[in-house]
Amino acid sequence: GKENGGGVTRNLPSDAVINLDHGDPTMYEPFWRKLGDKCTIVIKGYEHLSYFSSNKNPCWFLEPKLEDSIRSLHGAVGNAETDGYTIVVGTGSSQLLQSVLYAVSPPDQPNPMNVVSAAPYYSCYPETADIVRSGVYKWAGDAHGFDKDGPYIEFVTSPNNPNGVIRGPVVNRDGGIVVHDLAYYWPQYTPITSSLDFDIMLFTASKCTGHAGSRIGWALVKDKDIAKRMVNFMTVTSIGVSKESQLRVAKILQVVADGCKRFGSPDGDNLFEFGRNMMAKRWEILRETVKKTQMFTLPKYPLQHCNYFGDLTQAHPGFAWIKCNDGMEDCEEVFKGSKILVRSGRRFGSDPGYARVSMMSKDDEFNGFIDRLSSMI
Amino acid sequence: GKENGGGVTRNLPSDAVINLDHGDPTMYEPFWRKLGDKCTIVIKGYEHLSYFSSNKNPCWFLEPKLEDSIRSLHGAVGNAETDGYTIVVGTGSSQLLQSVLYAVSPPDQPNPMNVVSAAPYYSCYPETADIVRSGVYKWAGDAHGFDKDGPYIEFVTSPNNPNGVIRGPVVNRDGGIVVHDLAYYWPQYTPITSSLDFDIMLFTASKCTGHAGSRIGWALVKDKDIAKRMVNFMTVTSIGVSKESQLRVAKILQVVADGCKRFGSPDGDNLFEFGRNMMAKRWEILRETVKKTQMFTLPKYPLQHCNYFGDLTQAHPGFAWIKCNDGMEDCEEVFKGSKILVRSGRRFGSDPGYARVSMMSKDDEFNGFIDRLSSMI
Repeated sequence: GKENGGGVTRNLPSDAVINLDHGDPTMYEPFWRKLGDKCTIVIKGYEHLSYFSSNKNPCWFLEPKLEDSIRSLHGAVGNAETDGYTIVVGTGSSQLLQSVLYAVSPPDQPNPMNVVSAAPYYSCYPETADIVRSGVYKWAGDAHGFDKDGPYIEFVTSPNNPNGVIRGPVVNRDGGIVVHDLAYYWPQYTPITSSLDFDIMLFTASKCTGHAGSRIGWALVKDKDIAKRMVNFMTVTSIGVSKESQLRVAKILQVVADGCKRFGSPDGDNLFEFGRNMMAKRWEILRETVKKTQMFTLPKYPLQHCNYFGDLTQAHPGFAWIKCNDGMEDCEEVFKGSKILVRSGRRFGSDPGYARVSMMSKDDEFNGFIDRLSSMI
Repeated sequence: GKENGGGVTRNLPSDAVINLDHGDPTMYEPFWRKLGDKCTIVIKGYEHLSYFSSNKNPCWFLEPKLEDSIRSLHGAVGNAETDGYTIVVGTGSSQLLQSVLYAVSPPDQPNPMNVVSAAPYYSCYPETADIVRSGVYKWAGDAHGFDKDGPYIEFVTSPNNPNGVIRGPVVNRDGGIVVHDLAYYWPQYTPITSSLDFDIMLFTASKCTGHAGSRIGWALVKDKDIAKRMVNFMTVTSIGVSKESQLRVAKILQVVADGCKRFGSPDGDNLFEFGRNMMAKRWEILRETVKKTQMFTLPKYPLQHCNYFGDLTQAHPGFAWIKCNDGMEDCEEVFKGSKILVRSGRRFGSDPGYARVSMMSKDDEFNGFIDRLSSMI
């Protein structure tokens, strides 16, 4: 039996609830344990007291070390351009999403800007846009059905959450502002086919390295005025972002950047290699199991050349977007019957015949999920 | 010459801008240096990956150690009750302010709830309430002039930012929800005259210990449903709060709580003693200097019994609320003439003849401020 993702370890009681509703990326823990003290941070009581970080970035609360690591990592992976971009750090990409909505919406217009995304869309977009019923922007639903006049904001999630598909904007009209949410555009999840250079690109440490508890996201922003307005939003809503988290993530991203140019190293310090191997194994097991049950359908992903790995590969998304076959109308309920919590397709503006299942859990949860799936036959 | 607050150290070039606009509480640095490694935290790369903290608190992202330290510190100081309260952690008290507005406003009402505070009020309240033009709540200005019908929210800042005065609600009508912002209700700033037990109380590590860069605030909330709605706001807007900051502040607050029951100790590990001595000295120097210049007026504070120190003491607020005497209409401009940045009374809903000056800076900035004030004669 293999230790990681081999489908053999069985630690969960058979009646335990397995929560695969959230995308809590705990699967990277064994990798970080293996690295030992390489990413340990030590902060003394008298350090980093101030609100301010000493830097020349318009983002006055961004730690210079984090900025360096972010630029260095994107350069090493080749997934996004950073030259000429302003970096804005946020408390997770959740805070950045709101700050973008604020930053690109004219403050003085009579009607709120419409915010759309193509279904199935990330389930948090509607509540992010509508939580305090802003008069500046409002959720307007599925981008496919959007037919209102005037300016609008389109969130393009690529690879898409929930279904892992590479996407572009669908509205494509004048006055549209496109925000690229690239949380999963990393080599363990999807082939890196080009170094992206969109106007507004959002990333997060959570999905890249698994450090979700640190709540560090960053935006690469071309337009300096938009970046400034985002910084203003962050200033008013949280007077900046945790220095401790920034410094820790700075160290971790630098270790990832340094390790990711070595392939097949016996040290195994390449996060993306570790991640892709694990995800590929999990997807293989899931596909085999689903095939046996004949109850579900999984998406298929094309083989593409990954510039980072230098080989032909398919996507291994962080979530499985599972369709229940005929006769089962509520996919979430089907899983609940086996004490597996998943997120209904309904939440993504889609069909309850679909459900989103996290593939990023710890081994024992993933293995428990596979076990129960097998016994559904 | 004394090293701290003695008004002797002179490190700033005479033409340097001294920024006392923000309340950046860097004056505590010497205290934390003296404690050496007592507050050092070490976090390994594999620790605290998850979004979740394992606890039974309705605030699912609150680290149990932080909850323990907060309860222990309030108990040791005697400034607030915690029994029966739910603790909600936020990214600074800024995020908590917004989450409170969201939590106490009915989501489905046709008109936004009015948000008021008595002038001079904390300059960030108006923009916190209005930044995205919420349809659920909106800034309605000075509580003294508030005469609209219906429910409302009143922020009561005590001691008050900018002027250090102890305050209570001023509207006092049915349907009012009072939020107590107690950022400065700590013994270094003001006599602790009772252990408060209001329905909603906000605190922040920034002003208590000086760790502003950590962005940790907390709310003590009596009503469980309001606490749950606050947690929901935090979930949508940032999926929780930095684990690193929480763990560091947990350690620091515990060290403060442990040290604060020893008075006059040669170790000098009582933060509040250190803080009050420093603030008292600075206020004494400021009052002497202002007396000499005859250009300004400072508020006076009553002598009161402090339950924590067990003596009669007056307030030594974190800000000096300075009135320019007759003939000088714009107090902010007067200071700008000496390259001192302060915040105009206008920003606090008050008179431009007033300005708020931070008393919490590093020694060299405070000393530079006093120097320039002296030379204004």
